[in-house]
Amino acid sequence: MPAQFTHTRVVQFADTDVAGIVHFANFYRWMEEAEHAYLRSLGFSVMQKQPDGTVIGFPRVQASCRFKAPAFFEDELQVDVNVVRRGVKSLTFSFEFRRGETCLATGEMKTVCCLCQPGGKLQSIEIPPRYCERLVEATP
Amino acid sequence: MPAQFTHTRVVQFADTDVAGIVHFANFYRWMEEAEHAYLRSLGFSVMQKQPDGTVIGFPRVQASCRFKAPAFFEDELQVDVNVVRRGVKSLTFSFEFRRGETCLATGEMKTVCCLCQPGGKLQSIEIPPRYCERLVEATP
Amino acid sequence: MPAQFTHTRVVQFADTDVAGIVHFANFYRWMEEAEHAYLRSLGFSVMQKQPDGTVIGFPRVQASCRFKAPAFFEDELQVDVNVVRRGVKSLTFSFEFRRGETCLATGEMKTVCCLCQPGGKLQSIEIPPRYCERLVEATP
Amino acid sequence: MPAQFTHTRVVQFADTDVAGIVHFANFYRWMEEAEHAYLRSLGFSVMQKQPDGTVIGFPRVQASCRFKAPAFFEDELQVDVNVVRRGVKSLTFSFEFRRGETCLATGEMKTVCCLCQPGGKLQSIEIPPRYCERLVEATP
Repeated sequence: MPAQFTHTRVVQFADTDVAGIVHFANFYRWMEEAEHAYLRSLGFSVMQKQPDGTVIGFPRVQASCRFKAPAFFEDELQVDVNVVRRGVKSLTFSFEFRRGETCLATGEMKTVCCLCQPGGKLQSIEIPPRYCERLVEATP
Repeated sequence: MPAQFTHTRVVQFADTDVAGIVHFANFYRWMEEAEHAYLRSLGFSVMQKQPDGTVIGFPRVQASCRFKAPAFFEDELQVDVNVVRRGVKSLTFSFEFRRGETCLATGEMKTVCCLCQPGGKLQSIEIPPRYCERLVEATP
Repeated sequence: MPAQFTHTRVVQFADTDVAGIVHFANFYRWMEEAEHAYLRSLGFSVMQKQPDGTVIGFPRVQASCRFKAPAFFEDELQVDVNVVRRGVKSLTFSFEFRRGETCLATGEMKTVCCLCQPGGKLQSIEIPPRYCERLVEATP
Repeated sequence: MPAQFTHTRVVQFADTDVAGIVHFANFYRWMEEAEHAYLRSLGFSVMQKQPDGTVIGFPRVQASCRFKAPAFFEDELQVDVNVVRRGVKSLTFSFEFRRGETCLATGEMKTVCCLCQPGGKLQSIEIPPRYCERLVEATP
């Protein structure tokens, strides 16, 4: 099954650690980067200002990753993105990190559609129809 | 049940994001920080040079986190650490992030005892006895 | 001359890179951490909400650092902070990073007092008197 | 004068802070990213394993940046790179961060050619001729 979207990234020096490999916490940042690039490819941003001045965002409520093989400085990584579940208020994405044909890690992340208010206040809302039209679940 | 170890940390400006809250990827770095502080409290380092020049380390093979409430700039966070499973070659830790009595997030991380060789090569090994003596599973 | 304030920090695994040492960009985050800890020790925050709802902050306009010796995983670092110049609208801090008696790096950072408005808009203002009373230049 | 190399980067969510703008410490990481991309464009890596097993690298000895205007989430930034001085053992790069025609920041970074040994030991050496052939100073 081809991925719904593939994001590409070169491993930077600052991403590595003293063990000589990419530090694991970067994979969570890269899941988010890939998700945001996917949303942009569909024509919207993860943080969208509404006509009435409020902001609709998608804070993360859960993220997990399994590490199978290390990534190294200057590796070019592909991050495959799929929507595995589109709930009424939530989106769950899956990710596969590859270096060519080699799978390095797999992850999953659940986000919830929220009205984001100044000072970090968050209120969950139903995902607006214009998002749902484009964010369809991957069909196996 | 009291935690086996509690690590304390002040949220820094660089830990926050444009949503006004701590960026979620930092929680994974803080799980690791808390784990390493716990190991130091027991008298050893996560990366221990052996008399024969090799290094024993504990690369992560899996980490997950659930986010319940946001953390903010200058919050003082407590990170409770417990060993939930000590396998022959692996250790699984659980974490609870608190701001006083408020639980902000819970996480879990599995590490595998490895011989770490130059160039990021990793070979899993049995956890040496001197670690096992001190790294006991939390009793509920 | 003793420093006006000293901040202490343990080098974390995520701070290191594949060269086996602390990645240089962390020193800039640590200058800021030390500055903010110093401000807290004086009784205020770098980002202070005013009674009228606006926020007074101190965005950085310049920062430099010279690296003399590497820092390593689990080193305990001391960061000495001094106010080297208090202008009408700006503050310039100097920093010295030490591991015990060994100087690892020295840095300088200039911040400007600003009204910070939603959306990242910044307007420079004179430093309010209640800050000036406590933020005095170091006397050599 | 056109830059010797231009690196492009999209601002990620994790790059922002609670002030609603890019956190200043990221500019130092991006200087390095741009430098490394420039070196790759010339056919070599900042960390090059030699036939005899040693590694030649370019640790930073100094880096500074001046911030003129904020950068925001999802901005596409251009980073112009120039070699401003090629010494016997050192290289000094200048950087300009732009969003289209708007200059956001300027920076400078000095690196020293070193033999990098395991454990973070560094020994400065003359820049090998094959680097010098390609790393020429920008002519104003």
